[in-house]
Amino acid sequence: MGNLYIALLHFPMRSREGGIVATALTSINVPDIARTARTYGAARYYVVTPLANQRRIAERLRAFWMEEDELPNRREAIGLVAVREELEDCYREVEEAEGQPPLVWGTSARSDLPYPRLSWDEARALLRERSVLLLFGTGNGMADELLAACDALLPPVRGRGYNYLSVRAAVAIILDRLKGEEA
Amino acid sequence: MGNLYIALLHFPMRSREGGIVATALTSINVPDIARTARTYGAARYYVVTPLANQRRIAERLRAFWMEEDELPNRREAIGLVAVREELEDCYREVEEAEGQPPLVWGTSARSDLPYPRLSWDEARALLRERSVLLLFGTGNGMADELLAACDALLPPVRGRGYNYLSVRAAVAIILDRLKGEEA
Repeated sequence: MGNLYIALLHFPMRSREGGIVATALTSINVPDIARTARTYGAARYYVVTPLANQRRIAERLRAFWMEEDELPNRREAIGLVAVREELEDCYREVEEAEGQPPLVWGTSARSDLPYPRLSWDEARALLRERSVLLLFGTGNGMADELLAACDALLPPVRGRGYNYLSVRAAVAIILDRLKGEEA
Repeated sequence: MGNLYIALLHFPMRSREGGIVATALTSINVPDIARTARTYGAARYYVVTPLANQRRIAERLRAFWMEEDELPNRREAIGLVAVREELEDCYREVEEAEGQPPLVWGTSARSDLPYPRLSWDEARALLRERSVLLLFGTGNGMADELLAACDALLPPVRGRGYNYLSVRAAVAIILDRLKGEEA
């Protein structure tokens, strides 16, 4: 079984107006996605932002939960969090830990993208053999240049004509589809 | 296809110490779970608390997002939210809307409960025929008396020895398993 690493990215993201922005950190994403990552056995959860002050906030959130003796379950999940400046830092770390470069998969709610897509079955099969760095965007989603650089994209989680899940919900659904016992 | 109604309950909940409490409203649960509910075509999302000041907060959050012209997608989801004092209010409303009483299903991360459990397949099959009011707890989960009063419980979302998903993540995973196109 390959190891699954997940990264929550804040740059380069699409803004509502279609520009490219660095999004602000949403505090709840740190413990929430960590708990989901822990539930599905992810090896690490990277919170990635080029903004130094945002990294400091993420580190302080991490430290807060690590020191919280009353909630050991929370601490166990937060231990998976690593705050990094760039995606490339994560990639190199995973490569070093695994002894080979990971597959890099993107996620997007858009169904009109011209990049290679895996089916859920293909993704689950690959994940049994290779380690994967799975990318999640914030704001209005990952910039095209970032999606284009991925080895492949996962299918969108199709809603009934409504594709505006929170990233917290999207991570939960996607990890369940990739690693859940029902998947 | 039966309609799916979901309710986020704040009483009676288990506290960390094992007592019975009314939990405080977590603001992010209002828009986050609404977006998930909208994605999976739920008919309504009830936020239920016996505390009048907490209902006022929930109503203000609802009003805030309903008036936010810049985020029509958010508004579309928030339109599903109804704030109620008691579970019984929700049950009666659903019964009136559907012309028959809904099935009431509980959710719990605990696997040691002596109440009837559905499999995911059974739940999906029933949901094609009947309307369902699906209950989610907060704090450390629904009190036993509440779980015992349900027609049935859904299976726990089993993690790798770790069962502390946020309720936001649990709702997303459970709705995907019940109504997702991959399910």
